[in-house]
Amino acid sequence: MTGALTRDAFLGGRVRLYQPRVGYRAGVDPVLLAASVPAVAGQTVLDLGCGVGAAILCLGARVPGLTLTGVEVQPDYAELARRNGGDLLEVITADLKDLPLDLRQRQFDHVIANPPYFDRSAGRAARDGGRETALGETAPLKLWVKTAAKRTRPKGYVHVIHRAERLPELLTALPSYMGSFEVLPLTPRVGRLAELVIIRARKNGRAAFRLHPPLIMHEGAHHGADGDSYVPAIRAVLREGAALQF
Amino acid sequence: MTGALTRDAFLGGRVRLYQPRVGYRAGVDPVLLAASVPAVAGQTVLDLGCGVGAAILCLGARVPGLTLTGVEVQPDYAELARRNGGDLLEVITADLKDLPLDLRQRQFDHVIANPPYFDRSAGRAARDGGRETALGETAPLKLWVKTAAKRTRPKGYVHVIHRAERLPELLTALPSYMGSFEVLPLTPRVGRLAELVIIRARKNGRAAFRLHPPLIMHEGAHHGADGDSYVPAIRAVLREGAALQF
Repeated sequence: MTGALTRDAFLGGRVRLYQPRVGYRAGVDPVLLAASVPAVAGQTVLDLGCGVGAAILCLGARVPGLTLTGVEVQPDYAELARRNGGDLLEVITADLKDLPLDLRQRQFDHVIANPPYFDRSAGRAARDGGRETALGETAPLKLWVKTAAKRTRPKGYVHVIHRAERLPELLTALPSYMGSFEVLPLTPRVGRLAELVIIRARKNGRAAFRLHPPLIMHEGAHHGADGDSYVPAIRAVLREGAALQF
Repeated sequence: MTGALTRDAFLGGRVRLYQPRVGYRAGVDPVLLAASVPAVAGQTVLDLGCGVGAAILCLGARVPGLTLTGVEVQPDYAELARRNGGDLLEVITADLKDLPLDLRQRQFDHVIANPPYFDRSAGRAARDGGRETALGETAPLKLWVKTAAKRTRPKGYVHVIHRAERLPELLTALPSYMGSFEVLPLTPRVGRLAELVIIRARKNGRAAFRLHPPLIMHEGAHHGADGDSYVPAIRAVLREGAALQF
């Protein structure tokens, strides 16, 4: 990595990650994504667009005994993911549009993704190149979702966290062999629009779609002056590595 | 109508509707649908599958000065809608799959629909024929949504109420010229899955999708022993003809 790094604590210090000081930096979202996956020891997990490894390493810290693989297109971030994951994480530097043959022949029990949030064709590009690739969409959302579905074994799960306003596209993009869709809306405060959604889909699942009650992230109706306003369930996920059950 | 009728009060008695005693009977859902439509005097409204006219006549009672049209495939229900609506409601007896040419040449400011809730191919048919057509799907949901979109004028709105588990199909079925989607989940009690959704779409709308906080229908976490447990906002819609704003 050419720029300066920081080493940041996740899950109350159970995971420590090197990240670029400037550029895309993992926040709360990959941690929530990781917490939502019902993985058990012995299973395999693929993180599409793993960045420095925040989501998949938080999942690995919560559930011991997983086999973890990440794909990252940006070599600098992929290198940091290798450094952060050590022996626990296989990192493949590759573009979603052109995955290596070996990976295209594998399927995983769980595939997770936190795709870029902003459609670059619609807005101004971020100044930092790495941040732009991480936040902006060089690959369309449809490709992320379809690739996740393809790399999932029969009866396996896909979990994606994304902005709530992309929910129709996410649902539309999922191939028809995916089913048992569930949506968990994440809302900053009571009474607000959902900002994020975690969508769960199961390969060959046949259960009815479930729209869960929103998870309210913060206490109170307004942002307080200082301190950590997360509700206890979110605090347990972020600080103690608890699962996010839905 | 061959069977016995009842005459039932809606909106605290502002709307009185003849309905078959046995068969499909309008409940809370068409009233909530009607309450969600931001119609103003002078506009035109089409109700696809209007039944005895519950939704469109509740809307007409809340917003004076609308021009109201209903389409109903079952002649008995269409006849009751004519009787219930009098001069206020034009009722066209027609199948969604084969609308008359005159109607296919008209567009409306608002199109509303409360399509049948159960997929007949998946379950047991209701014993009463009328109830089966009203509750079961003889026309696929996709046709309802596409027909609603086609009959909407540019910048006009479609509102559909349906079971929450059909939300992915509803979103997928809306043609790409529909936009500004909004979803209001309706949840029986706090912390539960959404049972129903009201979906709003605007023809040629370009706003981002909005997932609203769920409207909790009933007070408390459990069903009480007796009485009307609706929260005040719902009671105002059902008993006083208030609008449901979102």
